[in-house]
Amino acid sequence: MGFSGRAQEYIRRVEATLDRYLPAADEPPQRLHEAMRYSTLGGGKRIRPLLVYATGEALGVPCERLDAPSAAIELMHAFSLVHDDLPAMDDDDLRRGRPTTHRAFDEATAILAADAMQPLAFGILASDPELLPFPDAQVRLVATLAEACGSNGMTGGQEMDLAAEGRRLDAAEIEHIYRLKTGRLLRASVLSGAHCAPGTTVDMYHRLERYIDALGLAFQIQDDILDVEGVTEQTGKRGGSDEANCKATYPAVLGMDTARRRAAELLETALDTVSDLGPEFESLRWTADYIVRRSG
Amino acid sequence: MGFSGRAQEYIRRVEATLDRYLPAADEPPQRLHEAMRYSTLGGGKRIRPLLVYATGEALGVPCERLDAPSAAIELMHAFSLVHDDLPAMDDDDLRRGRPTTHRAFDEATAILAADAMQPLAFGILASDPELLPFPDAQVRLVATLAEACGSNGMTGGQEMDLAAEGRRLDAAEIEHIYRLKTGRLLRASVLSGAHCAPGTTVDMYHRLERYIDALGLAFQIQDDILDVEGVTEQTGKRGGSDEANCKATYPAVLGMDTARRRAAELLETALDTVSDLGPEFESLRWTADYIVRRSG
Repeated sequence: MGFSGRAQEYIRRVEATLDRYLPAADEPPQRLHEAMRYSTLGGGKRIRPLLVYATGEALGVPCERLDAPSAAIELMHAFSLVHDDLPAMDDDDLRRGRPTTHRAFDEATAILAADAMQPLAFGILASDPELLPFPDAQVRLVATLAEACGSNGMTGGQEMDLAAEGRRLDAAEIEHIYRLKTGRLLRASVLSGAHCAPGTTVDMYHRLERYIDALGLAFQIQDDILDVEGVTEQTGKRGGSDEANCKATYPAVLGMDTARRRAAELLETALDTVSDLGPEFESLRWTADYIVRRSG
Repeated sequence: MGFSGRAQEYIRRVEATLDRYLPAADEPPQRLHEAMRYSTLGGGKRIRPLLVYATGEALGVPCERLDAPSAAIELMHAFSLVHDDLPAMDDDDLRRGRPTTHRAFDEATAILAADAMQPLAFGILASDPELLPFPDAQVRLVATLAEACGSNGMTGGQEMDLAAEGRRLDAAEIEHIYRLKTGRLLRASVLSGAHCAPGTTVDMYHRLERYIDALGLAFQIQDDILDVEGVTEQTGKRGGSDEANCKATYPAVLGMDTARRRAAELLETALDTVSDLGPEFESLRWTADYIVRRSG
């Protein structure tokens, strides 16, 4: 199977897992469950699950064991999008080409749907049958996901992002926000794949961290480039929405050329980190390409 | 030490644990961390931690092992209060006698502070040193907390509570909402104490569930009675705030006498469940009394 075919297969797997774990839309409270399904199953690039599967594949982990961590991480990502879109935050009407959850339902339901997606994510890690024989891995998966999403990770990054609105940041400040807001959960995706492989060495963990920290930043800069280019069809957001929200972005501060060059350099760094590893690590190489070049 | 002294000692323990695990207020992002501390350390009855400690005490668990589950559950409770108070939900200005988090800070920070309290809670369960030797217990603690807080628990109960505003409910419907919104996390508190005791039998789990399901409902009805009586100093909320929000409450639907009788009956049921157990279960008996009679 070609790389694109494998990506499609992984995306199919995580969507099937999410569908299986999300409560049915006709189970009460229906409106809440509808909103949870709407927020999670409405498309998306599924970058984080791809990273879980690609890392697990490189380390010889059976696919079935990776379904739960992939779904859990994607739920946390979807949770953060629902809250980021709220009127009190970015106040966005459109996400993935459809009305945002608070627009499609109402604000209270959007807050609560996302609130319920967090425990669902942690609950999946603690109860998925494929993981139950590995309690040490389960504990590490929970710890890694928790750390990535807390006030020193994704949520802290969003707070800093909001606090920075309208203020002029330099490249280092922007990269710091990116690393928290997006980078930490991307890193958790790769580490989670590694947690599922018994006997992953400390050296391998360090190498994977260097890989994803470079790749994660490249991905975020690329995402901002797409936003500036106004590719609503690709990103599903209104083109230029970052600009409209006075968000400090890499291209806005350093210009498009520098941004493009930085993304390319970071992609090279990520690829270099895994270039001397065996053919089984091919999965990490094509995933890096796939993620950064997806619409470049 | 008398019962009240033991309750105070348990409350002191959980507050010390929360203080230790919450990021310092001067650690960036400062505003977020201040809001997390404000929302968690600002008083509160600490009923859920008491239940964790009392159950653990009855089953011979060392106190230190109960600190993490107590703090994790209290964080999830505090998280839910911050979001329930938001303008899009109950729109409350006062909580525990102080401005609600979105009033003391701002709406975005309140949403995010609570969002960061969830992963902190799960992270504590996965990383507390006293629990690390017991990975099976850690996994069960995570699963129990997750189930209690999701769409079939606390969050689902809040959604149903909002949906019921202004509608006339019967006693069974109100009790159903109570059981989800409050009861599930109270049950998780008792079960978490039991998870920390190796070898808790299925029979004991069932008995503890019957105990807390009756006690939890008694507690909630008592809470509504206090609200109607307008005891702002006791509850820290504006007296009659449930009525102002057109909340369906037990006393509003069935009258104060019936509500008082039902709370007393449920307390008796809870006490009966553990009455034939040995003297070490005294902790569950005085906790039941303490919780329901606290201001009755």
